[in-house]
Amino acid sequence: MTAHLLSIADLGVDGIGKVLRLADRFVEVNARPIPKVPALRGKTVASLFFEDSTRTRLSFETAARRLSADVLTFSAGSSSLNKGESLRDTVETVEAMGVDALVVRHRSSGVPWQVARWARRAAVVNGGDGWHEHPTQALLDCYTIRAERRARNLGEGLGGLHVGIVGDIRHSRVARSDVLAFGALGARVTLAAPPTLLPPSLEGWDVEVSHDLDGLLGKLDVVYLLRLQSERMTEALLPSLREYTATYGLTAQRAERLGPDTLVMHPGPVNRGVEVASDVADRSVITHQVANGVAVRMAVLFLLLGMVDG
Amino acid sequence: MTAHLLSIADLGVDGIGKVLRLADRFVEVNARPIPKVPALRGKTVASLFFEDSTRTRLSFETAARRLSADVLTFSAGSSSLNKGESLRDTVETVEAMGVDALVVRHRSSGVPWQVARWARRAAVVNGGDGWHEHPTQALLDCYTIRAERRARNLGEGLGGLHVGIVGDIRHSRVARSDVLAFGALGARVTLAAPPTLLPPSLEGWDVEVSHDLDGLLGKLDVVYLLRLQSERMTEALLPSLREYTATYGLTAQRAERLGPDTLVMHPGPVNRGVEVASDVADRSVITHQVANGVAVRMAVLFLLLGMVDG
Amino acid sequence: MTAHLLSIADLGVDGIGKVLRLADRFVEVNARPIPKVPALRGKTVASLFFEDSTRTRLSFETAARRLSADVLTFSAGSSSLNKGESLRDTVETVEAMGVDALVVRHRSSGVPWQVARWARRAAVVNGGDGWHEHPTQALLDCYTIRAERRARNLGEGLGGLHVGIVGDIRHSRVARSDVLAFGALGARVTLAAPPTLLPPSLEGWDVEVSHDLDGLLGKLDVVYLLRLQSERMTEALLPSLREYTATYGLTAQRAERLGPDTLVMHPGPVNRGVEVASDVADRSVITHQVANGVAVRMAVLFLLLGMVDG
Repeated sequence: MTAHLLSIADLGVDGIGKVLRLADRFVEVNARPIPKVPALRGKTVASLFFEDSTRTRLSFETAARRLSADVLTFSAGSSSLNKGESLRDTVETVEAMGVDALVVRHRSSGVPWQVARWARRAAVVNGGDGWHEHPTQALLDCYTIRAERRARNLGEGLGGLHVGIVGDIRHSRVARSDVLAFGALGARVTLAAPPTLLPPSLEGWDVEVSHDLDGLLGKLDVVYLLRLQSERMTEALLPSLREYTATYGLTAQRAERLGPDTLVMHPGPVNRGVEVASDVADRSVITHQVANGVAVRMAVLFLLLGMVDG
Repeated sequence: MTAHLLSIADLGVDGIGKVLRLADRFVEVNARPIPKVPALRGKTVASLFFEDSTRTRLSFETAARRLSADVLTFSAGSSSLNKGESLRDTVETVEAMGVDALVVRHRSSGVPWQVARWARRAAVVNGGDGWHEHPTQALLDCYTIRAERRARNLGEGLGGLHVGIVGDIRHSRVARSDVLAFGALGARVTLAAPPTLLPPSLEGWDVEVSHDLDGLLGKLDVVYLLRLQSERMTEALLPSLREYTATYGLTAQRAERLGPDTLVMHPGPVNRGVEVASDVADRSVITHQVANGVAVRMAVLFLLLGMVDG
Repeated sequence: MTAHLLSIADLGVDGIGKVLRLADRFVEVNARPIPKVPALRGKTVASLFFEDSTRTRLSFETAARRLSADVLTFSAGSSSLNKGESLRDTVETVEAMGVDALVVRHRSSGVPWQVARWARRAAVVNGGDGWHEHPTQALLDCYTIRAERRARNLGEGLGGLHVGIVGDIRHSRVARSDVLAFGALGARVTLAAPPTLLPPSLEGWDVEVSHDLDGLLGKLDVVYLLRLQSERMTEALLPSLREYTATYGLTAQRAERLGPDTLVMHPGPVNRGVEVASDVADRSVITHQVANGVAVRMAVLFLLLGMVDG
């Protein structure tokens, strides 16, 4: 593992495997009456969230606390902090206070890489940058697929599985990181989205594309629904929410095409009735993804900051 | 005790008594040089405050920390979170991260009940919902009356005491919970308020009503002043602050009618010079209420999450 | 040491020396693998920041946590809290919850003194009040000068050193506290600033004034640059940023006049290219100031709250 976690590409198959195996142990820790280990006692993890994301921030901070690390929250809504120099000053200041890891979230792609260049000794974790990457989300998604299939006696790995990713691929850092991670672990990925919500070019993406969600659903081991931002309509990328749901939503009717073991996943927060019908959301593994997210982030922080080799 | 604390009515006399007796022990803990017990080590208490209330949030979080629980703060100012579906998603997400108790504050009545239906294993505590209930405030008020009277050798319980609640009863969750709790413990409650600040109907309220505060004051063991929101004037429920103070404020002159052992209480924050003259506020037990609030909330969290029976 | 830390003047030479010596020990603690001591276990430090300052708040909170104190964050952006009565209510409430120290930041001069009058048992630390004082900044600046000169074998104390403070003296609480502290330790202080950014009167300031920065630089042991607020231009106190930089900025060219051992300091956050050229900022000791700030604040909190005499 590198000194930072910026992209899924940094990890490679071995690195992903190491995180997932260690996450298994932390899932066990989290099931204990006192779900804590002293692994990172004395370490400080700072969350530098320049874009609001309570879910992701709380997940990282919970992970840090369960490893007995101290947590320092820096949430910057103020626009002045988006300028380069202020950002650098913030990074240098927070690091000088004695921080060991910086979890960075920013609306601009590439900021975590910039932060990693400024950091002198702290490990940098990409907590989501622009439309670019969200590697810990991809890791928890891989972990969840593996754990759910294992629990249903469907085998261990992702090799040979067929995953459909549905929705707003274009603006999704989750999709980018998931495509890299699922591909690295040997899964076949098909994207299903309206043409306006696909990236302008898919060069370098190891995926197929389908515009026929109905035809695709029955063939999938995993259907991964992305969150639809309502501003996509004001940007004229979508005619209406209702039409989106009719064509790309996982309605109750459409869900009948899924096999009994097909996993329904979503990064949250869900727009019930838009990407997925409320009843179908209830059969999804979304809350398992959230729970696994804490264990996976514990694994990532432990590998970056822990004394021993995982 | 139920698995949740939503209303004072859930507790009954026995439940209230159990909380108050346990709070006695935590008042002792809080007087120690190191005011901490390991009772809830490994537990996580989340505060879900959809309405701003720093006082109540800090009281609950201080209580949780003194029991050695971890604290997770979710403060949601954003209006999008007031919609039902987002709220549900928030509850499910926070719970999936491994939370044991959810302290919920919301400007809409009934939200804590809704949260309790969505929660799978977490205990839900009503931290104040709309104009409806605020049960831990009522518990700390009962505790304070008991403790203050005991300290003055005036006896133990609330049975037979006469409590006057003065001010904006209509919009007060504190009044609703206090009326239930004081009544359950055997106190006689008289409301004193301008007609516009009384509820449209008092059916089911076990209270008397007085419009003659001056005549009432000398008969009271406790005078409980409610906070006046200044927006009540823009809503034309009050002619002017000055007139309110003249008729319902506890002015220095009016305070002379109080017996020497009559307790002056207020849930805070006080508008000095409006509900109560500044000098009279200084003889009140308001800061004792605040201090007891921490102990009472420790008792509530301990009874909901602790291993042993209190 | 008094029961509060409101002004550098409260400390005197002995008090400053005591803080600096104790900070030496905490710098050592902070260099350990687990940078924590149990000194303030069971104590609670509340930060009452009525003016936003993430840097200072995080520094105090990190200091408190490393001493094993609990931290309670009260950040009040709301204007209602700037009114006297609300402020008093906040102080009394927070204190009643069992807080041992209140770190107060406010845009109005004198507020920490007011808070100290209201506090019954908590120690009050001035975390910066208006344009008035910022004593812990001055202490960390003294500490940094001492430590940097010791590391370069230039001696121990500040006695006889020549410190230049450059920039917006008028609106700077840092300048006021630094002038007091540097003077108390025997340093000679020269202010260099445009006349519009000097205080209307320097009566009682033990300083010289220079309008010739270029002539001054070669004589200084320390050049201390203040942050320039951009609103000084809209207030017509400055013609333009470019002109300010040309006359009072530490440009690369101007920095060549500095002796090899002259320290370049700044309280942060830096406007690179305005007060100081980016390359010159890189040779400064700004991040050391930040790191030392945690140790110095540990010393202050320990002296105010700790059991033993430092």
